[in-house]
Amino acid sequence: MKALVYKGPGEKSWEEVPEPGIQRPTDVIVKMIATTICGTDLHILKGDVPAVDTGRILGHEGIGVITEIGSGVTQLAVGDRVILACVSSCGQCSNCRRGLYSHCLNPEGAEGIGWIFGHLIDGTQAEYVRVPFAENSVYKMPDGLTDAEGILLSDILPTGFEIGVQYGHIMPGDVVAVIGSGPVGLAAMMTARLHGPSKIVAIDLDDARLARAAEFGATDTVKSGDADWLEQVIALTDGLGVDVAIEAVGIPQTFTMATLLVRPGGNVANIGVHGKPVELALNELWIKNINISMGLVNTNTLGMLLKLVAEHKLPAEKFVTHEFSFDQILEAYDVFGNASQHDALKVLIH
Amino acid sequence: MKALVYKGPGEKSWEEVPEPGIQRPTDVIVKMIATTICGTDLHILKGDVPAVDTGRILGHEGIGVITEIGSGVTQLAVGDRVILACVSSCGQCSNCRRGLYSHCLNPEGAEGIGWIFGHLIDGTQAEYVRVPFAENSVYKMPDGLTDAEGILLSDILPTGFEIGVQYGHIMPGDVVAVIGSGPVGLAAMMTARLHGPSKIVAIDLDDARLARAAEFGATDTVKSGDADWLEQVIALTDGLGVDVAIEAVGIPQTFTMATLLVRPGGNVANIGVHGKPVELALNELWIKNINISMGLVNTNTLGMLLKLVAEHKLPAEKFVTHEFSFDQILEAYDVFGNASQHDALKVLIH
Amino acid sequence: MKALVYKGPGEKSWEEVPEPGIQRPTDVIVKMIATTICGTDLHILKGDVPAVDTGRILGHEGIGVITEIGSGVTQLAVGDRVILACVSSCGQCSNCRRGLYSHCLNPEGAEGIGWIFGHLIDGTQAEYVRVPFAENSVYKMPDGLTDAEGILLSDILPTGFEIGVQYGHIMPGDVVAVIGSGPVGLAAMMTARLHGPSKIVAIDLDDARLARAAEFGATDTVKSGDADWLEQVIALTDGLGVDVAIEAVGIPQTFTMATLLVRPGGNVANIGVHGKPVELALNELWIKNINISMGLVNTNTLGMLLKLVAEHKLPAEKFVTHEFSFDQILEAYDVFGNASQHDALKVLIH
Amino acid sequence: MKALVYKGPGEKSWEEVPEPGIQRPTDVIVKMIATTICGTDLHILKGDVPAVDTGRILGHEGIGVITEIGSGVTQLAVGDRVILACVSSCGQCSNCRRGLYSHCLNPEGAEGIGWIFGHLIDGTQAEYVRVPFAENSVYKMPDGLTDAEGILLSDILPTGFEIGVQYGHIMPGDVVAVIGSGPVGLAAMMTARLHGPSKIVAIDLDDARLARAAEFGATDTVKSGDADWLEQVIALTDGLGVDVAIEAVGIPQTFTMATLLVRPGGNVANIGVHGKPVELALNELWIKNINISMGLVNTNTLGMLLKLVAEHKLPAEKFVTHEFSFDQILEAYDVFGNASQHDALKVLIH
Repeated sequence: MKALVYKGPGEKSWEEVPEPGIQRPTDVIVKMIATTICGTDLHILKGDVPAVDTGRILGHEGIGVITEIGSGVTQLAVGDRVILACVSSCGQCSNCRRGLYSHCLNPEGAEGIGWIFGHLIDGTQAEYVRVPFAENSVYKMPDGLTDAEGILLSDILPTGFEIGVQYGHIMPGDVVAVIGSGPVGLAAMMTARLHGPSKIVAIDLDDARLARAAEFGATDTVKSGDADWLEQVIALTDGLGVDVAIEAVGIPQTFTMATLLVRPGGNVANIGVHGKPVELALNELWIKNINISMGLVNTNTLGMLLKLVAEHKLPAEKFVTHEFSFDQILEAYDVFGNASQHDALKVLIH
Repeated sequence: MKALVYKGPGEKSWEEVPEPGIQRPTDVIVKMIATTICGTDLHILKGDVPAVDTGRILGHEGIGVITEIGSGVTQLAVGDRVILACVSSCGQCSNCRRGLYSHCLNPEGAEGIGWIFGHLIDGTQAEYVRVPFAENSVYKMPDGLTDAEGILLSDILPTGFEIGVQYGHIMPGDVVAVIGSGPVGLAAMMTARLHGPSKIVAIDLDDARLARAAEFGATDTVKSGDADWLEQVIALTDGLGVDVAIEAVGIPQTFTMATLLVRPGGNVANIGVHGKPVELALNELWIKNINISMGLVNTNTLGMLLKLVAEHKLPAEKFVTHEFSFDQILEAYDVFGNASQHDALKVLIH
Repeated sequence: MKALVYKGPGEKSWEEVPEPGIQRPTDVIVKMIATTICGTDLHILKGDVPAVDTGRILGHEGIGVITEIGSGVTQLAVGDRVILACVSSCGQCSNCRRGLYSHCLNPEGAEGIGWIFGHLIDGTQAEYVRVPFAENSVYKMPDGLTDAEGILLSDILPTGFEIGVQYGHIMPGDVVAVIGSGPVGLAAMMTARLHGPSKIVAIDLDDARLARAAEFGATDTVKSGDADWLEQVIALTDGLGVDVAIEAVGIPQTFTMATLLVRPGGNVANIGVHGKPVELALNELWIKNINISMGLVNTNTLGMLLKLVAEHKLPAEKFVTHEFSFDQILEAYDVFGNASQHDALKVLIH
Repeated sequence: MKALVYKGPGEKSWEEVPEPGIQRPTDVIVKMIATTICGTDLHILKGDVPAVDTGRILGHEGIGVITEIGSGVTQLAVGDRVILACVSSCGQCSNCRRGLYSHCLNPEGAEGIGWIFGHLIDGTQAEYVRVPFAENSVYKMPDGLTDAEGILLSDILPTGFEIGVQYGHIMPGDVVAVIGSGPVGLAAMMTARLHGPSKIVAIDLDDARLARAAEFGATDTVKSGDADWLEQVIALTDGLGVDVAIEAVGIPQTFTMATLLVRPGGNVANIGVHGKPVELALNELWIKNINISMGLVNTNTLGMLLKLVAEHKLPAEKFVTHEFSFDQILEAYDVFGNASQHDALKVLIH
């Protein structure tokens, strides 16, 4: 079969590799219908994630059809059309039992890290993929759900909702700021309304991205390049700051922005994947009664979000700006790797 | 009357000052029965808290008897023996309505900062004190409660419980680490058992303090000077780290220790008052699904803790190691300022 | 001044009575701009609420302008335009401190019952009213808020939200059933979307009321007179029942309907005011892991809902179907008392 | 092998039956080390549970050693000493994912009812038992845990904790009443302290049972036969009623007692298995802002409670009053069936 293979820092290739087979009773094999590219894949390609070995097939998002099931699989069948959760989890270890799928402890996985696709095992940018812990890690696609709707449920939509909205404890009436209008920031904006905020303020450097944010649920936009960006945001509140500040970029400056925006008693929810430590002004913040959360998506809300998408209550398909076939995947990488130039958000590869 | 007056950095005096009077309808005047000294008072004396003006009477803890009430006070009477909450709060602004007394917005107070005694208005190290928002800020002492039991309820016990135990979301069965065995760390240990942890691990540099921690509720102790302190703590868990790490010192090193100790999905509760920013290793922590909380006590659990102390279910009186009369207050400052030399914890001045 | 006075069972009169005056330092006097009639007023008039004495001025909803303030009132001023909460609460007793304003323990009120207007003290269907505990019981109206928007915030909107939506623990993705499409049921439907349900199913005997429900937020409607009403509702779920069943009628049959509709692990939220005991089939329900809640509104979400109404995010004004002047109040009672004949929902009297 | 077989109403026999075998990949076979008898077994024997067929092996509690594993079982091994949860759950259906194991939807089980041992499939009062969904339904016993400690974790201790303490939302400082001092009521008393109540009031008709309650954690006892039992309990509160009233009997009178005891804003947690409907005085209770919960144990706290028992922080072994060998099981039934005459609580059969 063909797959997108990591060949060491800066190198990748769409090449012929052996097809995967069942390794454990709880595995299934899925023929991929569609996959996509995530910012993390770009980081891996740069060599920023040393755990990824040369030869690894990349990708952790996707939908497909089951072609083979392990002997222990009883609730899935060959022919089922499924969404693959980006984290693989057994559902039965002490972490999974409390919904912390991102830190599944099952030794057949990675003992404490649930994100293994395209990282510690071969991923979804391939014609076939082996899916471990299948009964807890794939979700049947309802009839009528399109590929573009389904693909967002692997990672982006749950990440925005779980790590931004839920960890941020958004409450009815809250003013919410989202710093960064990339896919994950937009997913937080789109799903924030499930918790009834009064305002969703998008903050970004780029006018085009702010315009898009307004289409994804932002009620207000503020350009972070403006000298008075902070005053502009505070003016949208009662003067005390936002109830919830969501960081969706992953650099020290934007994290600090979140801590400046938040009101006493409020929450900072970090979604960004950071490459460096940040300075936390505990000398000023200790007295503010704020809360700072962070984390990898658990996908334990995937089923609920899938229901809302299938009922057309969350327009997940809006994220897909470009479509490619599998054999155009290198072109898809080009477009996604230069997203702003192409005004790209998510690319659908099918 | 006599009071302990801040005379500028490094200077204090026990001197004659005018008696306070009612200023607002919601005030009461309290004749102090007992007060105590807090680490914060030492910081103020060093000049570290610029908001404190020269001439300010220090102190924010105490018990006393009401001698005069404002025209708007209906549920308190002259002669009532009361505990003063260290934060002053109206109970009716939007922050107070959600229990965030530490950030009371009432413009008669300080509009957003509830800690005003011995800070923005005259405090409790005096013969008389004016108490604003009295109906929401004092608690009647039940018969039989001793001064030593009552004095801890002004600040220390609620701080350990609210900012350590509650913000740390301790759950039954949890392993809890408390870094620092000063008064506030010990208060967290003593009140942690109200949430049913399986282990409470005290971590400190000092053997004597660790020995005391064991008397206040710690089930295990680890000396932070040991090269393998981290391994020792982890060995008390299932190998993944503690469920809740409580920081009760207030310096960068101990905050970092808390982030090293905590398991994926766990909580870091910062109680320490920090004078400097800290480095937060978001590059390693973003994926750990942890939560970091911090804050000033609200005293909204004071009434509940008072009930438990009065029923002898929390031995608050154990904190009092030294007793002085009001005119020995400078000596009390000496002892408290050199606490380790005197093996002092809290001093009761009455 | 003129007021609507209860003259004993079946008797009322719009007549001249003495104007109220300040009685306590925390009182204010309000000149009413608008009031309305509640189903409870009809119950009182029938003689069903023995606690109401002959001579009592009725009404517990309204907006007005402050004309006089007590000596202890500092955050309100003469001339303030305010919404009166239907429950009167001190904000400082042990119940109020936990948000349970409906059971305020202040002995100046009614010691344990927060609903006193038009019940234990004179109410709001009058030209002037004395408002106890004013700082915790009135909310300033933002500029631009209309009478029709404001009047719903006294009681109906908070009741539907607090006792239906919040007590029912509605979660994103839930299927919610609301039995009864009167004002309070509609308020639950309108505010349910703040918690992100996937479906809101209105259930009522009357086609016209179901049609209105669809305008207030119901996504589906089921006629409870249909023989297969239960199957129709279950068909809108995954077959297991609704996540939350809200009872908004107040009779045994509708309460039982709610217990039949709810799925294992779900919630029954009773808003209805009941005149009789109900039979609870614990022999069948004990194993269902359901939760049954009930209660009087606290109005502790009034401020939050007011913000959303002022920002035009909740169309509260839709409830007002008829308007009258104060001297047409008897006619307003006629219309409201025969609501279905007049297709009336709420009457605005101003 | 030998097993205790239900032979129709009133009839049982300890007789030779075929040994069970693996039926599904997720099964294990366990050789029983110890089992016990539950009140439910007595109900089944009376013929009160029509779902139980003649020929069924009874029992849903037990500890044993794994002798065979299905092909899909990877985290358990032959020779493992395990505690069997009384409910069987897949861990992966939508109910299990939210911790509602009591209503596991897996069609290999019973599709919506998790309690199947000794009910819908053969149970644990036998030499061997087939355990479905083994990886989610058994817990490895730590070294040193005794049979008497382990046996309580199958059902009684989790039931008291989950359905009494957790569903009752006990908070630090609460006054808790437990009506009924049988095994499950005592389990609620023993585990209540994990949530920090100030008082645990045992209420029972029987002096001997009340004396035992005091040994299991009750701080106060009230005899329900006393004419003033209600006043006695209220006198132990601040006059408003208990915060949490736990029903642990299962008859209408005791359920009504719980609703009389509870304060406004409090919780009634029903643990009792009821055979008849109850009358719920909604006409009086609708205004009390109370919450009524009920349910079958999920055993999702079994692992946590096991940790506390293994660390000797919950003295589970105190429940075992009598011990028998397997071939004395009919005698064990006699003793347990006449528990008050024998002063029996739980019988250990090993």
